Parts: sequence; C-alpha cells; structure tokens
Amino acid sequence: MPDNFDSDLLVRLLEQKKFSALRGVMDVLNPVDVAEWIETLNTKDMAVVFRTMSKEATAEIFANLEPETQQVVISFITDQELAAIVDELFVDDAVDMLEELPANMVTRVLRSAKPETRKLINQFLKYPEDSTGSIMTAEFIDLRKDMTVEQAFARIRQIGADSELIYTCYVIDSQRFLQGVVSVRELLLASYETVIGDIMSTELITATTLDDQESTAQAIQKYDLIAMPVVDQEGRLVGIVTVDDVMDVIEEETSEDIAKMAAIAPSEKSYMKSTPFDLWKARIPWLMLLTISATFTGMIITKFEDALSASLVLTAFIPMLMDSGGNCGSQASVTVIRAISLDEISFSDLGTVIWKEFRTAILCGVCLAAVSFLKLQLIDRLLLGNDAVTLSVSLVVALTLMCTVLCAKLVGCILPMLAKKLGFDPAVMSSPFITTIVDAISLIIYFQIAQQILHI
Amino acid sequence: MPDNFDSDLLVRLLEQKKFSALRGVMDVLNPVDVAEWIETLNTKDMAVVFRTMSKEATAEIFANLEPETQQVVISFITDQELAAIVDELFVDDAVDMLEELPANMVTRVLRSAKPETRKLINQFLKYPEDSTGSIMTAEFIDLRKDMTVEQAFARIRQIGADSELIYTCYVIDSQRFLQGVVSVRELLLASYETVIGDIMSTELITATTLDDQESTAQAIQKYDLIAMPVVDQEGRLVGIVTVDDVMDVIEEETSEDIAKMAAIAPSEKSYMKSTPFDLWKARIPWLMLLTISATFTGMIITKFEDALSASLVLTAFIPMLMDSGGNCGSQASVTVIRAISLDEISFSDLGTVIWKEFRTAILCGVCLAAVSFLKLQLIDRLLLGNDAVTLSVSLVVALTLMCTVLCAKLVGCILPMLAKKLGFDPAVMSSPFITTIVDAISLIIYFQIAQQILHI
Repeated sequence: MPDNFDSDLLVRLLEQKKFSALRGVMDVLNPVDVAEWIETLNTKDMAVVFRTMSKEATAEIFANLEPETQQVVISFITDQELAAIVDELFVDDAVDMLEELPANMVTRVLRSAKPETRKLINQFLKYPEDSTGSIMTAEFIDLRKDMTVEQAFARIRQIGADSELIYTCYVIDSQRFLQGVVSVRELLLASYETVIGDIMSTELITATTLDDQESTAQAIQKYDLIAMPVVDQEGRLVGIVTVDDVMDVIEEETSEDIAKMAAIAPSEKSYMKSTPFDLWKARIPWLMLLTISATFTGMIITKFEDALSASLVLTAFIPMLMDSGGNCGSQASVTVIRAISLDEISFSDLGTVIWKEFRTAILCGVCLAAVSFLKLQLIDRLLLGNDAVTLSVSLVVALTLMCTVLCAKLVGCILPMLAKKLGFDPAVMSSPFITTIVDAISLIIYFQIAQQILHI
Repeated sequence: MPDNFDSDLLVRLLEQKKFSALRGVMDVLNPVDVAEWIETLNTKDMAVVFRTMSKEATAEIFANLEPETQQVVISFITDQELAAIVDELFVDDAVDMLEELPANMVTRVLRSAKPETRKLINQFLKYPEDSTGSIMTAEFIDLRKDMTVEQAFARIRQIGADSELIYTCYVIDSQRFLQGVVSVRELLLASYETVIGDIMSTELITATTLDDQESTAQAIQKYDLIAMPVVDQEGRLVGIVTVDDVMDVIEEETSEDIAKMAAIAPSEKSYMKSTPFDLWKARIPWLMLLTISATFTGMIITKFEDALSASLVLTAFIPMLMDSGGNCGSQASVTVIRAISLDEISFSDLGTVIWKEFRTAILCGVCLAAVSFLKLQLIDRLLLGNDAVTLSVSLVVALTLMCTVLCAKLVGCILPMLAKKLGFDPAVMSSPFITTIVDAISLIIYFQIAQQILHI
C-alpha cells in the first residue's frame, strides 16, 4: 500500500458518518487500496460504504474485491444497483466474477445486465477454463486501413473511454479479419494526414481463443508486448489479452507448479482463505499414496532382515542414505521441471540433459562419498567411539552413497521429461514421488553392496 | 515463435549470399525471433549477419541476444560499430549487458559510448543488484504542469522516438520533483487547450531507487500499472520501471525461490547454459550439510540399538515414517513460503497459521494413522504373512505417524515465518532442511512410543 493511504482516516469518516467526505476521498484513492480496506469491514459497514460510493468509483472498486466479498456485496444491493455495476465492469472482470459465484447469483447478475452486455458475457463464459478466450477482454480500439491518423484519433476519442487498453489499435476489414496493428506511439509520431494502411505493422503475433492461456502469457512476456490480439478459428478478431491479466496467469500457474512439486493438489484459494478442511483435501491424496507405497521399502528391509541383524550398525545409516538420495533427486527434478515450464528444454534434449546430470552426479557423488567416509571414520568411530563403524562399513556406506546419487539424479531428470512427453504435467513428477522410487533403489543397492563387502 | 517465422528462409538467403534480401527480411521480422535465430549460428555466420543488418535493426536484435552471444558479437565488431549499438540501446539494456561482460569488454564498451550515454550508464551501474534502480530506464516523457495538451503532444513527438514507454507521462517541476502523472489516454480524451495541471493525477504510486526490485514488481502487478516512476532519496524523478522488465524480475525471483526450496543455490544461468560444474557448485553445499547433519539421526538409531535388536521389525517402518514426516513438513513449508512471497501472510499471522496447520495436521494425522494401521494388519500381516507385525507394533507405527505429522506441519509452518522475521529468506527453510529436523524428531518419538508399548 502506498505511504499516503490512510485507512484510519476512512474508518474515522465512516464512524462519524461524514459520508460526503468519505465519498470524495474514495473517488481520489486508488480503487485497489479502497477494495483492500473494504475487505477488512464487517457486512453492515460494507453496505454503508457501498451506498456512499460515487457511481463512477463503484465498478472499479467492486472489480478489485475478493470473490467472497463480491458475493456479500451482491447479496445486499438491489437489482438496479447490481445492473449499474455489471454494465460498468469490463467484460473480462464480469466473467471472472461470474465464474466464482453460486448459480442463483449468476442468474441474478445476468438478469440485471443490459441485453448486449449479457450476450457478450454469455459468449465469454463458453470458453474453456485456462483457454486464452477465458482471459481476454472484448474492449479494444478497431481501426480501418483507409483511415487517416486524424480519423484514428477521433475514433479513439469516441470509443476510448470504454476500452481497457487503447495503446495498441487493431486494423480490421469489414469481415473483422485482422489486417495489422498500429500503436498509439506510431500514431503520435506520424502526421495527421498519414493513412493507417501505410504505417500499420503486418507482422502479427496473435493467439487464438482456444490456445492455452499459459502459452499466450509466455508469448506476451517473450515479445515484451502490452497486449496481444486474439482471433477465432477463422482468423476474425474477437478480443485482446492485456499484460496485467497475463501477470496474474503467470502467478497462478507458478503457484500451481510449486504446489504440485510439494505433492499438494493445486487450489485457487489463497492460503488465508483456505480452511483446514481445504488444506486437508489438497494434501491427503499424495500423503496416502506415499504412505502406502512405502510398503515396498518395508518389504525390502524385511527381506534383508538377516543381513541387518548380522550387522545392526547398518540401520543407523538408512536415514542418511535415503535423505541424500531424496535431496539429489529433487534437486535434479525441480531444476528440470522449472526449465520445462520456462520452455528452455523439450523432450528432444533428453540426451543432453541425461549427460549433463550424469556428469553432475559423478561430481556430487564422489564428493559426498569422500566426505561421508571421512566423517564416519573421524566422527562416528574416533570421536563418538562407535567401534562397529569399521573401515568396511564406511566403505559400504560411501559406495552406496555414490550409487544412490547417480540413480537419484538420473531418475530425477528423466521422469519429468517422460511425463511431459506422455502429456502429463511434469511438476507431478516431483520430489515426493521421486524420493519414494529412489528410497527403494538405494535400499537395494545398500544391502547388495553390504552383502558383497561384509560377507553377511 | 509465430507461425510465419521461417528460419529456413533466412538460412537460404545467408547461404546464397543474398545480403540485401536478408537485410530487408531482418528489418521486418520481430527482433526477438531474429535474435533467437542468430543464437543458432556459428561465429563466422554471425559476423556476416551482423555486418548485413541495417543500422536501425542492429541495436534491438543485439539487446535480445543471450549475454554469451553478446560477448561473441562484441569480440568481432569494430569500436565504431560498437559505439553505434551502445548509443542506440536503451540504458537499462546496456546496463544489463555490462553486468554480464568481462571487465576488459566493459572498458571497451564504455569507451565506445557517447559521453552522455557513458555518464548515464555509469550512474546506473552504481545501483545495488536487486534494487529498483538497477532495473529502471532513464528514458521517459517529462511534462510541465502549465503545458497544454497540444504542447504535451508536441513534446511527445519530439522526444517520444527515444522513450521506451511513452504512454505514461510524468509531470515534474524545474527541480525535477515529481508532481503528477498523466496517461496518453487522458491526453487523447481531453481537448487540445486543456492544461496538464488540471487533468494530471496526483495520487502517485512511486518507488525509490534503493527499494527492493521484488517489492516494486509486486506493486506494479497489484495496481495493474504499465510503468512506475522511480524517485531518488530526495523525491526527484530519475527513471521509470516498465511492466515488461518487471515480468522478467518476477520470473527470476520465482526461479530463485523454487531453487532454494529444493536446496539448490540460485543461479542466473539457464539450465542448458549451465555446465555440470556450475550445477555441482549450486547443489553440493546443501547436500554436504544435510549428509553431515544426518549424523544426528544415526546417533539416535545407535542409541536405541538395543530396542531395535529386540524388535527388528521396527526397522522396516523407519523409511515410511521419515518420508511421511518429510512430505507433511514440506507441504506446510512450501505453502507458507509461497504465501509469504505473494505477500498474503506476515509474521503477525503466526498464530492464525499455527492454528490452521494444527487442525490440518490433526485431520491428516488421523487419516494416515488409521490407514496405515489397517494396511499393516491387512497387507503386511495377513497378505504378506509377516507375523512380526503384531497389533502392538501396528499401534506403535500408527501413533508415531500421528505425532510425526503434527510435528512436521508445525515445524514446516513456523520455520519459514521465523526466518522471514529474522531477516533471512524464508525459501531457505524448505523441504530438505525441515526433513532433517523432522527425521530426528520422528525417530525419537518412534523409539519412545515403542519402548512404552512394547516394553523393550
């Protein structure tokens, strides 16, 4: 919040019922901040504040509220007030809101909107979730090729007040096919008599309504655009996606990736709005699966019980071996998953990635093996006086560590890339999953090496 | 890459030495795509292509190359050619490049620049890494309060071609103190005679040069801005930060967070450009630390060796208990770290977070304990015929699991918040670190419960 935002002042104005001052203050403050303040009020105060707001401020403040608060507001305002808000909202904001509302409220909102707004909203609601169509806005400046710069400015003046982003204008023909783009910057730098067709750029970077929203977001970021035109399957211009919507998409997709990497089902609710039951629902499936799949590690240990009872000291190093394997594996998988989601690598790089991880694993493995061998001899044996940690036992542990690191890095880099190739989300092939596989592999390696070297 | 980008065509033009056609094609293509194509060439072809480019295209294509390729290009062009590129670059792009170059090349680049460019670059190079000053650009439109809209347009025409972003204009006084902002949109919608002072907005959201770049990025995202003015400590306007630079900052900071969560030292090199040695350097410190700190789990197991030898079956469940604890802990820590980095929670929410995680842990713990008790009795004992898995042993495992989940969730949510409070990066308090702590705690709980119930 900017330093000059004084929520105490708003509270005082509200408490002392200075409504016209409150209205004036809300008019000049940033609607994002006002919305944030409204979130902290109780329902009664919220109703008072909404009645106080000027018509102009209402829609923008409303659009910045959390979905839950929007529901509260809708529940206490009249149909007429609702209609005014809906008609003022940008279509993409209205669609965002409707996607979160319960069905009976959606009916009420749609009934309150003007017929043309309703039609537009209905059309936008049909785009699949996560498609580019679902995040685009229908408000943009359209120009014709044969207009002059002067006519273009007149058109911007005429429809500009309603457009979310006026700095890129789209040149279309009578069939609404996109022919070119021209930025306001280019218009400003040209003379008034210049014809749009002569200065427009025809190198178009477009998305279609059904493109995945993440790939559109990445394209906007790659080409440093502030908006991207969206065309339908026939190539007709239907809307634009703006950079501010794209930033929200990127944040959301990143949160999803991070959640999946930690074996959590992604959720659109923020942490503070999630109940313990929500959190439980998101976390328990993977926990269950991993607990059950640990049956394998249990079976492996049971199978080698005789070896273990012959040399009980081996048990002490199981946690260390498993943790190191798990860490190595998740380092590799997280790095590879991030590189995939930033479009740095694709399946065709599999060979390169494996060779890179193989060499990294050798470097890490040799270091860890050497250090742990020394640690076992110096700390465990000499310092802590554990005589069971013989040279042979230390050798078994060091060799196992070396092999485990190698397996972990390879499993960690191969699985996410395979998942991507097979059409799954690579982020699911993350730490916990890889840890379980690496655990089983490293236990088998451990006992095999132990049997060979210790003759048990 | 857009569908209409045909790198084969460029290759053919290059091979058949059709240089004037190649130059024409590169002029109309998007510089991002051309740069991407140049990355695939060998040094000799690269030199030919750079000699072929038109002066106008060169700087923008150059700015979009990877730092390594920029070095190659600098090594083969003349000082005069270099001077032309540097003077055409936006200052922030030039600074980005210089930060990556070896010292002898920096000297050459600075020597080649015009004195005024050199002065500006030098000034920008002084801002600390990760500060807002380090990502801002000095090119923007400055207006005066008493100008009319018509005069403002004249000024935009005059200096606009050099400005990275002309859509927000900054109103300053003769001392360069920022007085207001006015968007080109507002200028377009006003009449030519309107005085700027009457339409400018004085509700300013600004950053200072020393602000952390991440908080500036978050503010731009929060308020849906396309640029934010940056002032010095005295409040004088020195530059602006644009939304496209901010998207890169957010991507970089997220990659850093993800790397830290997986116990990897963050690096600015992309995965494909990192050598195995780079990867080793980033990964080995945490691996070493975690391997050494596993001494504690080893000591705990050694201490309870007698209990273990009395009931060897307990060993089989150590991996499962530790993995479940680790997963629960990292679920909590990753969720909390993400919420902190999105500014959803702060240290004052510690109580709320602990209470939320406590209830979540009870839900998860009860489920996991019940399921694993059943699994032990049905699968391990009945199906696999392992008679050592008695009712008491199953009870020990289930109770331990319950306690482990509780500890893991609490440690997982408290540590990142404490780290943040103490001024460390919460992302460091991530899975591997928490796993090690939870491992030790769960082993102690396991053996204590086992001794009580099994009387060993």
